[in-house]
Amino acid sequence: MVTEVNKQESISPLTGKKYAIPEKVDDKAGIDAFVALHPGKKVVVVQGMGFVGSVMALVVANALTEEYAVIGIDLASPFSFWKIQSINEGIFPVIADDPKIGLFYNRAREKKNLYATCDPYAYTKANVIIVDINLDVKKQSNGSGHLENYSVDLTPFKKAITSIGNHCQPDILVLVETTVPPGTSQKVVRPILEECLRGRGLSTDQLKIGHSYERVMPGPKYIDSIQNFYRVFSGTDEASADATEKFLRTVISTDEYPLTKLGNTQATEMAKVLENSYRAMNIAFMVEWSRFAEEAGVNIYEVVNAIRMRPTHKNLMLPGLGVGGYCLTKDPLLASWAKMNLFGSEEPLQQSETGVHINDQMPLFAFQFLQSQYPGSLEGKKVLLLGVSYLNDVGDTRFTPVQGLYERLVEAGCDVVLHDPHIVYWEEKGINVNNDMTELLKSEYDIVIISTGHKEYRSSPTMIATLLQHSKSFVYDTIGVLTNDEINTLKSKHTVRVIGRGDL
Amino acid sequence: MVTEVNKQESISPLTGKKYAIPEKVDDKAGIDAFVALHPGKKVVVVQGMGFVGSVMALVVANALTEEYAVIGIDLASPFSFWKIQSINEGIFPVIADDPKIGLFYNRAREKKNLYATCDPYAYTKANVIIVDINLDVKKQSNGSGHLENYSVDLTPFKKAITSIGNHCQPDILVLVETTVPPGTSQKVVRPILEECLRGRGLSTDQLKIGHSYERVMPGPKYIDSIQNFYRVFSGTDEASADATEKFLRTVISTDEYPLTKLGNTQATEMAKVLENSYRAMNIAFMVEWSRFAEEAGVNIYEVVNAIRMRPTHKNLMLPGLGVGGYCLTKDPLLASWAKMNLFGSEEPLQQSETGVHINDQMPLFAFQFLQSQYPGSLEGKKVLLLGVSYLNDVGDTRFTPVQGLYERLVEAGCDVVLHDPHIVYWEEKGINVNNDMTELLKSEYDIVIISTGHKEYRSSPTMIATLLQHSKSFVYDTIGVLTNDEINTLKSKHTVRVIGRGDL
Repeated sequence: MVTEVNKQESISPLTGKKYAIPEKVDDKAGIDAFVALHPGKKVVVVQGMGFVGSVMALVVANALTEEYAVIGIDLASPFSFWKIQSINEGIFPVIADDPKIGLFYNRAREKKNLYATCDPYAYTKANVIIVDINLDVKKQSNGSGHLENYSVDLTPFKKAITSIGNHCQPDILVLVETTVPPGTSQKVVRPILEECLRGRGLSTDQLKIGHSYERVMPGPKYIDSIQNFYRVFSGTDEASADATEKFLRTVISTDEYPLTKLGNTQATEMAKVLENSYRAMNIAFMVEWSRFAEEAGVNIYEVVNAIRMRPTHKNLMLPGLGVGGYCLTKDPLLASWAKMNLFGSEEPLQQSETGVHINDQMPLFAFQFLQSQYPGSLEGKKVLLLGVSYLNDVGDTRFTPVQGLYERLVEAGCDVVLHDPHIVYWEEKGINVNNDMTELLKSEYDIVIISTGHKEYRSSPTMIATLLQHSKSFVYDTIGVLTNDEINTLKSKHTVRVIGRGDL
Repeated sequence: MVTEVNKQESISPLTGKKYAIPEKVDDKAGIDAFVALHPGKKVVVVQGMGFVGSVMALVVANALTEEYAVIGIDLASPFSFWKIQSINEGIFPVIADDPKIGLFYNRAREKKNLYATCDPYAYTKANVIIVDINLDVKKQSNGSGHLENYSVDLTPFKKAITSIGNHCQPDILVLVETTVPPGTSQKVVRPILEECLRGRGLSTDQLKIGHSYERVMPGPKYIDSIQNFYRVFSGTDEASADATEKFLRTVISTDEYPLTKLGNTQATEMAKVLENSYRAMNIAFMVEWSRFAEEAGVNIYEVVNAIRMRPTHKNLMLPGLGVGGYCLTKDPLLASWAKMNLFGSEEPLQQSETGVHINDQMPLFAFQFLQSQYPGSLEGKKVLLLGVSYLNDVGDTRFTPVQGLYERLVEAGCDVVLHDPHIVYWEEKGINVNNDMTELLKSEYDIVIISTGHKEYRSSPTMIATLLQHSKSFVYDTIGVLTNDEINTLKSKHTVRVIGRGDL
């Protein structure tokens, strides 16, 4: 089994270790040796060693009612090759606050039932293949941050499925966990796999394709978000649905978190993107009303809390800096794209698309609110930005809305100092981030902006007390972490502004 | 006190009685006599005897901790004059399933503490004036039902406030309950009242203006939706907020349903329209995803139920025929209008407006789904439309989405028979509605459409059994009231289609 790869290096951001990417990948011997260690065990191959797949592999290697031999597979690319090596060398490639990550990884190391490779030869050994690769949306935005257009390119996804089809056994269960445009399992995955099998002279009768989306939440409950959480599943036919259910029962605590079976794969695919579109829309709703509150002299927090007393309105969100992460920024578009491109509809999911448009503009709005409230020009001002991650108490910078705010501050001529307790290096921007808040707060700033809801910025008497020792500055809370008491304390010296609070 | 009115008749739809509208309204003697009956009691005037004001007057006449003399006032117009006469003659002008309506009206009749008039002289006697008049949005739609544009004309509202200012005492409490564009109490009501008082040589120091929106729900809990429900309130200044709170405590069960005070009148005004915009948006969201489900062969009900297991997604709605009633069809537009016209913003509430656009199109979508599913032309087909009201178990046709569906069926050449257990006469369309379902079901129809979720159509074994005795026809459930069992039973004979069920 020999595959062409890039002649490049892959560097581990965890250890700094450099791995030369081989010109040809041939790990047949390694895979055979691993499988030979586990006679009689079913082999599960997890495709994609990202935020979902790597931890899914841990959960399967620590399955509840069955012992699996688990192989994680990813491309021999600069972005992924170090992860493969790292898993085999004893360093798990994902860092998170969840102690279960270390526990599960160590257990798998002891049992020797987790192996990683770049060689698609692994698929030949698999009884189950779990698809956890990315499926991206490309957005074209205009200068003002407004979403102009977007496109979905299925080519990399199709290539990954083809690689499975070219190697897998004919009675394989392929379980798709990737968030895909509704219709993909039935209209994309099944035709590709069937064509590959037929091309290899094999029967397609035993092919099973299931869909069960993950709701992985990096952070302190990382493992639980897979193992102890409700799952929805389906299959492209009854045999596929049955095989999917049987497999899921071995890895997920389904007694406590019952499985829900839906009628077809379109239904489960739709459930995932509907769920995320609903959340993105709820955020966008509050983005617009926050701005209105700022204009109308209203404290939107007290308004929302008053309305939330009604159970029909409990899901109202509070204001913030917008939306980040991998899912909410793209899933509504995946859905709308599928509606038009896989099912031939002439109408997009207008409201879901509008939600993404609005959320994408939020960092611009936050910057504009600062401009409108700050007395004088921002040029040359020293700014402390507290928080780079898009999510509280996690170091995740994927599509963080802080980026849009940061870039506009820099464009406006601000001298921006970054802090985040969970991030050393901001990969997307290629800049270092400070972790020592006590040290940072010794300096004075014209503007202090809270941009993530980390616990270090929430109810921190030390932070408030240190800020009070500074000269008069401008404190800007873009995500509503400051309490009323903290705001009043800070106001005794500083100018304080909060997103969605027109009453300050 | 003499006012010009139209030389016309006003007809009671309840009794058919015709009232000649007087050329000049002069009810000074009547009002004086009524007030004289209640020495020492505070006089509360309720402005507007519609769905809200008439029942609010009942609640105030049956206040919990104080005895008020209550005067209801409305215009001497064909639309309202009969209501005024009817209240004084012993027939309450609103019919509802709520037995408390009759109870409260009879108690007020016994106590003689409810009077109705068209003469603004009543304002001179008032200690409190409650504003319950309408404030409408005018929508311009294109042929396809799509909202093209809308406008808000404050003229009638300003005229009503001016009428108060021209007569009221300077120490009046004016409590605005009308759903208004945020900013109205402070930027419209207060300036008008102050100008009127100054014009009359009176001080404006004692003028109090409060805002506390109603959440009146016509139906079996009509009275409770006022007396036993959470209230949010505010005042244009502290004295106004205090007076408002004091008054509300006498009429609402505030021990059980605590009041929530917000910082200013913009905040409470915003709370109401935000609440309704959120609900309208949630409905619009499901409108779009239902269509997607129809296209993709998905049962959207099972998808929604699977997602609703997450508390963050409990407010997801189920599909339906769209939105009706007086509030959800216009409140998002009132808000967006205020943002731009009262606060000078250049940006509308895009997502809230989009919600109204989408909901307005829903009856068209429902018709198009029928067209796409019905084998052959609709021309000349006999159609039974079950339900005209926009709301379950209530006879309320205001902005009912059934109208859009009905009109398109008629345009397509269908012979449409209407049924609704709560409606005898469809005022907006000027046509009679049948009440006797058993009689109606004796005839055969090419198409039977369920268009309202009345209990008569929900879990009705008789209805299902009778339909099964008909020749093969097309049963179309536009609001998802049929259970899976009912659908399977009906399918044994008929073709069955349900909004949001692409799997049938």
